[in-house]
Amino acid sequence: MAEFPFLIDATSGAARTGVLRTPRGDIRTPAFMPVGTAGTVKTLTTGQVKAAGADIILGNTYHLMLRPTPERLARLGGLHKFMGWDGPILTDSGGFQVMSLSKIRRINEEAVTFQSHIDGSRHLLSPERSIEIQADLIGADIVMQLDECVSWPAEEARAAEAMRLSARWAARCKTAFGDRDGQALFGIQQGSTIEALRKESSDRLTETGFDGYAIGGLAVGEGHEAMCAVLDYAPAMLPPDRPRYLMGVGKPIDIVEAVARGVDMFDCVLPTRSGRHGQAWTWDGPITLKSARFAEDESPLDPDSDCPASRDYSKAYLHHLVKAEEILGQVLLSWHNIAFYQALMAQIRAAIAEGRFEAWRAAFKARAVS
Amino acid sequence: MAEFPFLIDATSGAARTGVLRTPRGDIRTPAFMPVGTAGTVKTLTTGQVKAAGADIILGNTYHLMLRPTPERLARLGGLHKFMGWDGPILTDSGGFQVMSLSKIRRINEEAVTFQSHIDGSRHLLSPERSIEIQADLIGADIVMQLDECVSWPAEEARAAEAMRLSARWAARCKTAFGDRDGQALFGIQQGSTIEALRKESSDRLTETGFDGYAIGGLAVGEGHEAMCAVLDYAPAMLPPDRPRYLMGVGKPIDIVEAVARGVDMFDCVLPTRSGRHGQAWTWDGPITLKSARFAEDESPLDPDSDCPASRDYSKAYLHHLVKAEEILGQVLLSWHNIAFYQALMAQIRAAIAEGRFEAWRAAFKARAVS
Repeated sequence: MAEFPFLIDATSGAARTGVLRTPRGDIRTPAFMPVGTAGTVKTLTTGQVKAAGADIILGNTYHLMLRPTPERLARLGGLHKFMGWDGPILTDSGGFQVMSLSKIRRINEEAVTFQSHIDGSRHLLSPERSIEIQADLIGADIVMQLDECVSWPAEEARAAEAMRLSARWAARCKTAFGDRDGQALFGIQQGSTIEALRKESSDRLTETGFDGYAIGGLAVGEGHEAMCAVLDYAPAMLPPDRPRYLMGVGKPIDIVEAVARGVDMFDCVLPTRSGRHGQAWTWDGPITLKSARFAEDESPLDPDSDCPASRDYSKAYLHHLVKAEEILGQVLLSWHNIAFYQALMAQIRAAIAEGRFEAWRAAFKARAVS
Repeated sequence: MAEFPFLIDATSGAARTGVLRTPRGDIRTPAFMPVGTAGTVKTLTTGQVKAAGADIILGNTYHLMLRPTPERLARLGGLHKFMGWDGPILTDSGGFQVMSLSKIRRINEEAVTFQSHIDGSRHLLSPERSIEIQADLIGADIVMQLDECVSWPAEEARAAEAMRLSARWAARCKTAFGDRDGQALFGIQQGSTIEALRKESSDRLTETGFDGYAIGGLAVGEGHEAMCAVLDYAPAMLPPDRPRYLMGVGKPIDIVEAVARGVDMFDCVLPTRSGRHGQAWTWDGPITLKSARFAEDESPLDPDSDCPASRDYSKAYLHHLVKAEEILGQVLLSWHNIAFYQALMAQIRAAIAEGRFEAWRAAFKARAVS
């Protein structure tokens, strides 16, 4: 285990910055991973994603299972080659999206079975099959255990049951994963918003032992305050020498507050989804380009950015593209948002490294949340 | 007049290759102009269009009139600045799309009036207003006269009437255009598929005198053979020392045959429209990426291309993107098609320059038409 060296260069309270070394390249932490759902970070070329500053992207096992299918991906040489991304890729286990997207599913000790939301075809996902798909067929660099994520709010008994099933599945995933060169396996802490369950989950995962630890079951409707309350204790329950990954989070303010509480990695569809819906993230919060107030605004989204989408096009032009429903508007706003998220992470890393994270965080919150 | 030097370097029968010099850069001819309908070559950044090899793009006056409006464009510094394209831009006059897209229109000697297909608002387009919009407000490098393009088939009397109105409007456009530094005005030959009308149109335009001459009223349903029959005589009626532009054409085979008959410039939405509908143009003809036969085809569309979209992605990946209705599929296929059209023009230019155009044309037709 501990396949990938994780070097922490500096800390500020619970926050830390460093690098996770992988055979496909370094991941600077805290890191934001753009989501490449079905083999594409939506609307963007991998060249654009790389130019935006991303070190690693995420692939969704559920989507790739249905299309193009893991076996086809394997015959085509794996996901990296398929989509033209030579940096590291993390895949989720598929479990979360089975619960949120598929039509009919049944979960038992052995596995989850479900019907595709696309064509109704039947599929099975067990801990062993999830590892096979992610590690052998997709060829992910970072593989996630299969888990059960309960909806929110959850009764304690239900949350405990799902957490314990996830812990047993974690051990099966580790056995199935075995010893692999150049790939890492992360466990997932569950337990809803209940501290004792999070503790039990962490203890069981740590006993099994993983290359990294995710915090699952948040950003499912509990809201920013409740999430922060869990993050006040949940990251510290996990081994300090391994990366901590908060799944599916989030808005910039969520990320900043999670970093302050010891989280190292993030993923979220928000920047690309917002971009496709005409929204741009800025240091002053999100703006809706369709608004008439941008119709003759000649300023770009960020004149200081290295990203062409942020720097080279006026808000007036983006307003026009969104109003005219031009695809280029979706492309440029997705690209800008990914670049903005990467710029956010770069500022966070620099602030921690330079010992001024708390001041940076206060200034960020004063500016962006209002 | 003759604002832009047109230097013919080599000929092969009626075909010629050379360069049209503009203050914003050279246009290598024969040239294909990607269509940037409403301030965007659909789905593509201007950087991608330039990387595909385009020297000049086309803007549609009708679309820009409705959105963002010419006055707003002028306040924002013109179309080049607005969309981030520093090469030359040719704009059409708006007349053709008024006829094909707007809901209610009335045409008389003075002008055409119409209702927007977007919001029903009323607009007027006269020769003088068309020049003002294109030359003063949009800031086009090459401005087209306002003309009336009849549908096909047209009765001779109707075709003659429209051609003569177009000739009178051509003279009014020239007066309105006046003497301008750095911008050129093209007249448009009309006359449907009737040789005598094409001759009369050419004589009247030549008498007025333009910087270049377009052939209008083709590619409106008459088909490849009928179009070639007109091109057997129509280009030769126009001054040999000025560029000839066949509007709205077309498929690669149309372009090759028009070049062979003396045409220098082309525009068409086909490469971008095909791309958005999952079709790729190749040296062997168009292919539909959704077809199951590409599901595991690891070859790229063109391994020898400099365009990333043509060279760096397998057909299997493009098949997946099209099947999954991912926007990136539309982007990559549009980009490839624009690059393919530019590669086609580059091959045509090289073949003429090297005195082997007839052999190249025969080989192209043997390969692509089958």
